[in-house]
Amino acid sequence: MLRIAYREMHETLTRILIQYGFNSDRAATCARLFTETTCDGVYSHGLNRFPRFIKTIANGSVLVEAVPFPVLRCGALERWDGGRGPGNLNAYQSMERAIELSRKFGVGCVALANTNHWMRGGSYGWQAADAGVIGICWTNTMPNLPAWGATEPRLGNNPLVIAIPRTGGHVVLDMAMSQFSYGALASYRAAGSLLPVEGGFDTDGNLTRDPAAIERSQRPLPIGYWKGSGLSLTLDMIAAMLSGGLATYQIQADELRETGISQIFLAFNLVSLGPAEDSMTISEQILEHLQANTAGNDVRYPGEKILKTRAENRLLGIPADPAIWAEVQKL
Amino acid sequence: MLRIAYREMHETLTRILIQYGFNSDRAATCARLFTETTCDGVYSHGLNRFPRFIKTIANGSVLVEAVPFPVLRCGALERWDGGRGPGNLNAYQSMERAIELSRKFGVGCVALANTNHWMRGGSYGWQAADAGVIGICWTNTMPNLPAWGATEPRLGNNPLVIAIPRTGGHVVLDMAMSQFSYGALASYRAAGSLLPVEGGFDTDGNLTRDPAAIERSQRPLPIGYWKGSGLSLTLDMIAAMLSGGLATYQIQADELRETGISQIFLAFNLVSLGPAEDSMTISEQILEHLQANTAGNDVRYPGEKILKTRAENRLLGIPADPAIWAEVQKL
Repeated sequence: MLRIAYREMHETLTRILIQYGFNSDRAATCARLFTETTCDGVYSHGLNRFPRFIKTIANGSVLVEAVPFPVLRCGALERWDGGRGPGNLNAYQSMERAIELSRKFGVGCVALANTNHWMRGGSYGWQAADAGVIGICWTNTMPNLPAWGATEPRLGNNPLVIAIPRTGGHVVLDMAMSQFSYGALASYRAAGSLLPVEGGFDTDGNLTRDPAAIERSQRPLPIGYWKGSGLSLTLDMIAAMLSGGLATYQIQADELRETGISQIFLAFNLVSLGPAEDSMTISEQILEHLQANTAGNDVRYPGEKILKTRAENRLLGIPADPAIWAEVQKL
Repeated sequence: MLRIAYREMHETLTRILIQYGFNSDRAATCARLFTETTCDGVYSHGLNRFPRFIKTIANGSVLVEAVPFPVLRCGALERWDGGRGPGNLNAYQSMERAIELSRKFGVGCVALANTNHWMRGGSYGWQAADAGVIGICWTNTMPNLPAWGATEPRLGNNPLVIAIPRTGGHVVLDMAMSQFSYGALASYRAAGSLLPVEGGFDTDGNLTRDPAAIERSQRPLPIGYWKGSGLSLTLDMIAAMLSGGLATYQIQADELRETGISQIFLAFNLVSLGPAEDSMTISEQILEHLQANTAGNDVRYPGEKILKTRAENRLLGIPADPAIWAEVQKL
């Protein structure tokens, strides 16, 4: 495993993006989002995803110069069109706009149609929390999850992000509606491990902890069985209805051609409700109570591990697979 | 099993509520919410819950005359105090206000502190959808769910409701963060059945489908294990921070003294985005595609069964346990 300095990774990715037609500002922001994701330890959606991101530019799924434009403004709720631009830049700009709206209206909502994969959803949660607001966002995806009772994947795994600002480290939940992503299944299989809990059905329709059996059946399990199935469906409906964009069933089930997706960005301005300290005291005390007297600190809050990983990777360099780093440098 | 006419049940409950100090308008609305819940087949939170509701009035947990009052208005986001009034009336009024705000601002949010158990959360989802808006609401609860990795219940099961209006019948998701409620565990135990999937831990810390074992351990499982645990935590944090009210850890873990809870009501005005038909077409087509060519129609959307139950119970009378109906009539 290599360790690449944050700055080196950021400069390398920026340079490549400029080559692929990004102007220098947008290249720097897009590269920063990839680098931060990697630095935070979410390797699957950081550096390791970068070659695939470049492929979606090369095949025309992602239009590098497209920027979101407003379609409709209705007070605190706005509808934007992402023009099939780079998903992470579109999402970042949309959360910025939701935050802006929340400064004026207390709450702000941007519904974004016609965009692309946002890479790590958590990025926009951290962005909101860094701005001192509560952020909620979600995306629909291509069909990759069977509804409860079904065998064919007609739902998306539709990641949902909820972020709460906190002085001692934000709480950032970033969860897909499937119990395990295909990336996670592959990692368990490669390690020769069973899943810690049942993760889907085998081809005979039995629940299983065998990752390879689920990869074969293409039947991962929604979180909470019928509950996650319903949650995935309603998140898709809201994203499509508010944005006026595509629903999961209309999105091509091909990771290189998954485009035109719909997303929701919500921001709640805590400062409009009183001194920031008051909110921070509430969140602080909730976590303190949750973790008080737990043996070996085995109760973690979402996002807790990230700060440590981030600090370590900033100091020692960001871990990178040598083969992937070599592949990226050749792009 | 008795069957009670809708009108008879509504009049009976109204009369009792007036006896307990409600004015006639509020008695009628509160009784309507209980009757509708029962008529929709959610018996656990309708008639069967009514005697307990009356006990919480008698013991001073619910103040019958209290009405919510605004604490802070910030555009589309408002903070209200429920004054420890009847939870279903408070929730109904808060969703009405969120809908009103959404008519003006596109999106509206009411954060309600100091309220009481809202009985069936789905009621406020149906209310939003009936008004043609998308509704999202959630509540925190007393501690009744261990976090992932913990053995003591320090999280609430914090039900989340998502409602989407649809001409052919609204989509209404109403789900607690535990895989099975204590009510559901009791029903499975009484029927001598195992749970259909693992529902919690036994006292030895093993996952189990035995409902009685989970009742003994008090360790029901969050949906999606670590995921539902994180979702429950963040919903509680947002409810407490936006409303300025109590968090789960501050709420008394006693079903007769669970008071002062916090809730969030969000409404998104679809009409502000264009003709209602456009949104309806989107939701219609999503459901059509979800259910097309599925064997035996075994893929249901959240809320689908309710319309049938409602129609049947309106026609034939609402099923009621004779003992409970007798108990209610004596109140």
